Amino acid sequence: MILLFTDYGWQAAYVGQLKAAIYAVSRTASVIDLQHDAPIFNPRASAYLLASLIDFLPPDALILAVVDPGVGDAARRPLVMKADGRHYVGPDNGLFNVIAKQAEVVKFWRIDWQPPRLTKTFHGRDLFAPIAAMLDQGDEPELTRLAVEDMGFADWSAELAEVIYVDNFGNVISGLKGSSVSTDMRIVLGEREVCFAQTFSAVGEDEGFWHINANGLVEIAVNQGTAALAYNLKIGDPVYMYQSEV
Amino acid sequence: MILLFTDYGWQAAYVGQLKAAIYAVSRTASVIDLQHDAPIFNPRASAYLLASLIDFLPPDALILAVVDPGVGDAARRPLVMKADGRHYVGPDNGLFNVIAKQAEVVKFWRIDWQPPRLTKTFHGRDLFAPIAAMLDQGDEPELTRLAVEDMGFADWSAELAEVIYVDNFGNVISGLKGSSVSTDMRIVLGEREVCFAQTFSAVGEDEGFWHINANGLVEIAVNQGTAALAYNLKIGDPVYMYQSEV
Amino acid sequence: MILLFTDYGWQAAYVGQLKAAIYAVSRTASVIDLQHDAPIFNPRASAYLLASLIDFLPPDALILAVVDPGVGDAARRPLVMKADGRHYVGPDNGLFNVIAKQAEVVKFWRIDWQPPRLTKTFHGRDLFAPIAAMLDQGDEPELTRLAVEDMGFADWSAELAEVIYVDNFGNVISGLKGSSVSTDMRIVLGEREVCFAQTFSAVGEDEGFWHINANGLVEIAVNQGTAALAYNLKIGDPVYMYQSEV
Repeated sequence: MILLFTDYGWQAAYVGQLKAAIYAVSRTASVIDLQHDAPIFNPRASAYLLASLIDFLPPDALILAVVDPGVGDAARRPLVMKADGRHYVGPDNGLFNVIAKQAEVVKFWRIDWQPPRLTKTFHGRDLFAPIAAMLDQGDEPELTRLAVEDMGFADWSAELAEVIYVDNFGNVISGLKGSSVSTDMRIVLGEREVCFAQTFSAVGEDEGFWHINANGLVEIAVNQGTAALAYNLKIGDPVYMYQSEV
Repeated sequence: MILLFTDYGWQAAYVGQLKAAIYAVSRTASVIDLQHDAPIFNPRASAYLLASLIDFLPPDALILAVVDPGVGDAARRPLVMKADGRHYVGPDNGLFNVIAKQAEVVKFWRIDWQPPRLTKTFHGRDLFAPIAAMLDQGDEPELTRLAVEDMGFADWSAELAEVIYVDNFGNVISGLKGSSVSTDMRIVLGEREVCFAQTFSAVGEDEGFWHINANGLVEIAVNQGTAALAYNLKIGDPVYMYQSEV
Repeated sequence: MILLFTDYGWQAAYVGQLKAAIYAVSRTASVIDLQHDAPIFNPRASAYLLASLIDFLPPDALILAVVDPGVGDAARRPLVMKADGRHYVGPDNGLFNVIAKQAEVVKFWRIDWQPPRLTKTFHGRDLFAPIAAMLDQGDEPELTRLAVEDMGFADWSAELAEVIYVDNFGNVISGLKGSSVSTDMRIVLGEREVCFAQTFSAVGEDEGFWHINANGLVEIAVNQGTAALAYNLKIGDPVYMYQSEV
């Protein structure tokens, strides 16, 4: 099973061509669009978002991820990572660093296989898609093992006290884990602050709150409203949490 | 075949995780995205819209539908409905009431099966998706039969004289059935009104008209224009039709 | 393998019903969404865009394409084209003309097969989808061969010096082929002009340039910016290229 995680959006033929390239190699692959509006040009926020999604995927899932502002830059290597049994295919720009940091066992390879045709700007279709299809069906494309110590993920923090994503309901997702905070903490948003609530229906209409979302991250929401507008929040904004005084 | 009908939108990983949860149970399921911009937080309008779509689906289709503002609320039961041979999986909030009302044979069950992990806000992924996958492949998850008389759908009207959806062309779809009206009727829209035309190309460019859309509902459109803007219409607005004087 | 190319957008149930209609005929079809935001109501721009995408598709791909403002008009015939081994199904309105012009071998048929139910406005679902599914699985629906000389594509130019698409990054795609221009040419955009660069990372942030995109077309872009806004460009605008003086 191949899951796609990109910042391509649903417009244009980018995702369609990515899939056609997978099926050209493996006609029987199961391909799922996991997410195509990853934080655009932002591998760092995307890395924290992607890490929050993998717990709910089957253990043999292969993730093909592309958030790659530096595509075409010679310094950026194409990568395969294997972390706790799952394969990841994508650019070497930090996108897999949070997953690598959390993993018990992690290995990296540089992709040496060369496609018959490699455009400058669409490595997703030309390089990563065929590699993902090959790995998914058990082929062995040409790879070179890389030393884990050189991959740089060790310096990354496990969490990020920033907005990493705003969904289409206007819910504001942070890079903070629900397992690291307590429910009596508050989030400061300019001159206002929001308290914890367990569900949307636990607060009044148009009322703001924070909760632990379905992927385990701290999320700011407004019941039947849009938190991003109500609190003027966007990707990269800081998210301060503090313990309420009793 | 499992068809998805939700108000999740195409952004974020909601739909992707729903599908991954289906494939985790049934790797060979055929899954089709029927619609992911159902009227948001609006099970009532969604119920009329969904009912208009089922005539064109294969007789063994299973519909997994989630428009569920009350998710996490203990009073809201998870439901399986079987209506005229097709299975429906989703929340007990009216979403299936129009289909139930129209059906010749209808049965209901409460879902008793419990997933290993049930988040407060994403029952689509955690509960409904695995149940849909189980039913689609012929498994028998734990269910309790419910009395049809207690389901409340009998009080619902078969049609709704309101806007229930605006599509991305700006076409305005009502909950009125084309089979209940005659083509000499007009629709009043503020100080203006529109007449019937059979197709877009039957009227001039930028001209408004109503027609019976491809799903059998009365729809207000503007040839190569956007009716929602031209007539300032949104979901919930009334749609008055009256017989033209001869 | 069936690839879908339409201007339906991802909203509403249009694409979902198209797929359900395919699966109703052929439960084992592989269906890929190639693109659903083709230039709306614009078969001419869509024809140049679609032609740029086919090089990267498997040789046995079947393309189901619908950009059809004249749907329901009796003069518009439903068509099957076979060009260089691939089948194309859609309306006879020019949508396949650029591919026909480029093809070494091309044949046309009018679709005579009639569906049990043909709505006025949704021939994609009612007519083209079942035909595509039949052809994909090797059935022989009722067709009548048409004379190539009568199809009108010979008069079309192989390229178009206009904007034919703007993607969601704001990149502006022209109907000019990269293989017809040289990299010392400039594009005039009002009082400004842009030069060639090989990749996004070859120019500074917010700097405009033109390049040959991953589908071989001349494209105007801004590194980490939106060219459509920066240069105020939309579909149909002329794209002038001239040789720089040395």
